[in-house]
Amino acid sequence: MQNYQPYNLKDLSIAQLKGLCDTLRDKIITTVTNNGGHLSSNLGIVELTVALHYVFDFPEDKLIFDVGHQCYAHKLLSGREAEFGTIRKRGGLSGFPKREESEFDSYNTGHAGTSISAALGIAKARDLKGQNFNVIALIGDGSFNNGLVYEAFNSLKPLNTNILVILNDNGMSISPTVGSMHEYLEILSHDSLHSQKIQRHANIFERFGFSYDGVYDGNDVEVMISKLKEVKEKLRTQSVILHIYTKKGKGYSFCEENPQDTHGVSGSNSKPMPEYSHVLGQTLCELAEKDDRIFAVTAAMTPSLGLAEFFEKFPERSIDVGICEEHATILSAALATQGIKPYYAVYSTFLQRSYDEIIVDICSQNLPVTMCIDRAGISGADGETHQGVFDLSYLSCIPNLTIAVPKDGREFRRMLEMSAHYDHPLVIRYPKDCRQYFDGSDAPISAGTWEILAEGDCNVAVLACGERALSIAFRAAKLSGKMPTIINARFVKPLDKRILDGIDAQNIITIEDNMLTGGFGSLICSYFAENNKIIKNFGYKDSFIPHGSVTELMEEFGLSVDDIAAYIKKCE
Amino acid sequence: MQNYQPYNLKDLSIAQLKGLCDTLRDKIITTVTNNGGHLSSNLGIVELTVALHYVFDFPEDKLIFDVGHQCYAHKLLSGREAEFGTIRKRGGLSGFPKREESEFDSYNTGHAGTSISAALGIAKARDLKGQNFNVIALIGDGSFNNGLVYEAFNSLKPLNTNILVILNDNGMSISPTVGSMHEYLEILSHDSLHSQKIQRHANIFERFGFSYDGVYDGNDVEVMISKLKEVKEKLRTQSVILHIYTKKGKGYSFCEENPQDTHGVSGSNSKPMPEYSHVLGQTLCELAEKDDRIFAVTAAMTPSLGLAEFFEKFPERSIDVGICEEHATILSAALATQGIKPYYAVYSTFLQRSYDEIIVDICSQNLPVTMCIDRAGISGADGETHQGVFDLSYLSCIPNLTIAVPKDGREFRRMLEMSAHYDHPLVIRYPKDCRQYFDGSDAPISAGTWEILAEGDCNVAVLACGERALSIAFRAAKLSGKMPTIINARFVKPLDKRILDGIDAQNIITIEDNMLTGGFGSLICSYFAENNKIIKNFGYKDSFIPHGSVTELMEEFGLSVDDIAAYIKKCE
Repeated sequence: MQNYQPYNLKDLSIAQLKGLCDTLRDKIITTVTNNGGHLSSNLGIVELTVALHYVFDFPEDKLIFDVGHQCYAHKLLSGREAEFGTIRKRGGLSGFPKREESEFDSYNTGHAGTSISAALGIAKARDLKGQNFNVIALIGDGSFNNGLVYEAFNSLKPLNTNILVILNDNGMSISPTVGSMHEYLEILSHDSLHSQKIQRHANIFERFGFSYDGVYDGNDVEVMISKLKEVKEKLRTQSVILHIYTKKGKGYSFCEENPQDTHGVSGSNSKPMPEYSHVLGQTLCELAEKDDRIFAVTAAMTPSLGLAEFFEKFPERSIDVGICEEHATILSAALATQGIKPYYAVYSTFLQRSYDEIIVDICSQNLPVTMCIDRAGISGADGETHQGVFDLSYLSCIPNLTIAVPKDGREFRRMLEMSAHYDHPLVIRYPKDCRQYFDGSDAPISAGTWEILAEGDCNVAVLACGERALSIAFRAAKLSGKMPTIINARFVKPLDKRILDGIDAQNIITIEDNMLTGGFGSLICSYFAENNKIIKNFGYKDSFIPHGSVTELMEEFGLSVDDIAAYIKKCE
Repeated sequence: MQNYQPYNLKDLSIAQLKGLCDTLRDKIITTVTNNGGHLSSNLGIVELTVALHYVFDFPEDKLIFDVGHQCYAHKLLSGREAEFGTIRKRGGLSGFPKREESEFDSYNTGHAGTSISAALGIAKARDLKGQNFNVIALIGDGSFNNGLVYEAFNSLKPLNTNILVILNDNGMSISPTVGSMHEYLEILSHDSLHSQKIQRHANIFERFGFSYDGVYDGNDVEVMISKLKEVKEKLRTQSVILHIYTKKGKGYSFCEENPQDTHGVSGSNSKPMPEYSHVLGQTLCELAEKDDRIFAVTAAMTPSLGLAEFFEKFPERSIDVGICEEHATILSAALATQGIKPYYAVYSTFLQRSYDEIIVDICSQNLPVTMCIDRAGISGADGETHQGVFDLSYLSCIPNLTIAVPKDGREFRRMLEMSAHYDHPLVIRYPKDCRQYFDGSDAPISAGTWEILAEGDCNVAVLACGERALSIAFRAAKLSGKMPTIINARFVKPLDKRILDGIDAQNIITIEDNMLTGGFGSLICSYFAENNKIIKNFGYKDSFIPHGSVTELMEEFGLSVDDIAAYIKKCE
């Protein structure tokens, strides 16, 4: 961790602070346009961030960003301007708050709804240690739908501590914010903010122990400073929720007009590629035309999951529940009890939030819910909190669950076709980009069947699951100069025992875009436990995987074509 | 699934219905006293259940019990009286709702907060299919703290469907209900119920789209029937939340006075045994006397976890956040960022709710939180939804995490002592009962070290983790007539490579009280993947484990002393 010196803005005039906001905004636009990253959300809270740094004293005071994707201005103001051009690149600054990176980052975030719980824990520790600093949770209205917020509110009084929650309301999570809580917020603010008087009638936040206050123009740095000063005083004796309105994408007209498309943007050097999400959207629409039982469930991210068209075409058979992965899972299970055919699409890393419900609600009831797991494997530039590298490990121990991993977009389509008539819980996991097509059968797929893509002539069989793993398998085989058998292990559960039992080679290599521990390779080790096969698993070693490009991270953390080729070479 | 005939109570007079309530109550008391089970909660809602069966038409209408432990009167009224004596016994009725058991059980539950999401899914499916029945979620005020409730509320309006939520308020979850939501409910009911007039001023439920109504004496069957009739009418056009007050343990004075102790009771035949929870409570109190950084976090269940005394002695250093496992996990992580030493105690099955937060908040930040995982392994009579058999599988893939499994209560104590100075995330997992002590060193323990409990003289090494597995190992060894090496594999992560590399025996047997897939044994298979060891894993096969006694379920689902002895015998 470096000892950064914060930007000194305490002596600036309001006019100078406004100029600083413009400078920060330019810097963010330039860098994000180049490196990729979260754009609109960062532009929206420039004034808030400047005002926070003006009024509070970081790092003594603690600022916790919910999700954390909106911390760019904070990074720039906390001494990381020189490194800012490295953001989201391997070895560079993270696009999220990182305690390891700077003492100005108080708590690592990445998934929604954690900031208030974290603020409460930090504040409680402060009280126990007799310290005296301010703790601030900054949360957007999208995260605000998550049940964690309610759980944290519920323990504010029992914990008997003071925190400031800033609710940054821009009416958008990644998609427009859904749900009644958002409607409630609108009514609340209309009553208490818009009319320029804070009504003292009980709102729900006051019941939970907060003093409720607000600012209608959260993009006015002068107004924000004056309000934050007021709130800082209040904080001595009570917890405060400060409800502010900001404009997502503020100051960049393209973003203001397209906040959803510019929530996260790719770097300027990246080429457009076909994506698995596109296959999902297209195939599911086609299936739904013929089968009126098909229903789509998302927990935000609908467009990124490829389902915008489905939602438009079938409004009655689709629901985005907001960032509520647990609820989405149960809703899917319950729909399935009544003969509806739910497809729950979600990023791998966020599926972790549904873990208990996958076990109890979907699998122990053996319900035909299909979970379409996007961004599986290394997802890249978002880093530790977003890599989808655990799913094969945590899912494979669940009874009744079938786990499919398509080798390419065409096979993904076949799997979706299979799912429409499949009567058990099913997971299909895939990365974002679809980069190549493999030869192989285009016939309908049965659960638990693999396919042999290349018959070998040496004592080596390579079992690879998913496009990335197969691509590596073929490249490593070529490089090794040998001809191993290459098998498309497209189901991690159940395994294809017919093919496994038919493997003559004594050397078995597994390749997967997942952690080694508990992953596909470990299932193969267990399968041959009483056998004399020599098995080598390639996958990710036991550590968290930081941000960087997908290719360099795969190479560095365990999937090196060279290493695999070298291993094949030395097999006897 | 059997075709049960419901008890016909539609023609009974109020006096007769009251008599029926008495009969049901007697039946429940007699059976639970004998079989064990949930007592107070079932006694509290007898009148409500009778009124529901009187007013609604099951199984056409759907009734979803949150958690599901309070379904006994419902089972008795839905044709399962004859089998009721078998409840919670292997092959008998489940103590929870089970769709497989009866069409009167609409949705399987077991963990808190799922009923409203499930009701919404079932109601939405009904609407899509053009059907016309009522969907009722029955939830207690303890479950009502869980974030899922809020997530479900948030999507009531977007789903555009009608459900009835009955909030059964008895001021208790298992421990007295904590948190501000409960205070809010009290104020709400005082305003609107106690004063005998329903005030129309906006309460939070109305904002979410519910019509709010209530009954102060939920144990008066006549009042309940009249109110439910009224609500049934309303349901045609809107969703309703019906807030009722009942007395936990109603009608059995011992329970009324001790609702916490009689929430779940053991059968009359069970003997009192020392429990791991007792060791936890005692040791943690002792450690906390000397170390003021130690802090205890629970998500309800405080007494069953052995921490009642700790909470009494250290009120400032303990918090029960209610049934909010996710929030509890983040709170622990955040406390640890500030140098506090949190112990988060929780049942294995409920830890599943914390999965994402264990990965992101605790482990990716590498914070010294100790998770004390009670009821790990088969937990017995509560069945599928409560077995703690997945934890080793889903935890072992998480980087930075150490996983300890004590061989007995004494070793558990040593592990807790170790934890006080351990600077990384740590899990200690153990079952409820402590049944025996093993010989072995009483010295301080270092993370990742195993111990050899018996030096063998044949070509077999048995690696067992945890008391139950070791007990089976010794019994199987004795029965086999051979003398294998027996190793106390007290850390599942990291593995003790020194001992593993020193194993000369070619045959390795692993035993664990966990699923086979992804469990301890699979780690051993992976460890020796390139080796020529012959490895046999004993643990639970790939299926959900129903209710029954711990001993019979262990035997039936994969841990049979006879089978293991037979395997040892035939090893060469």
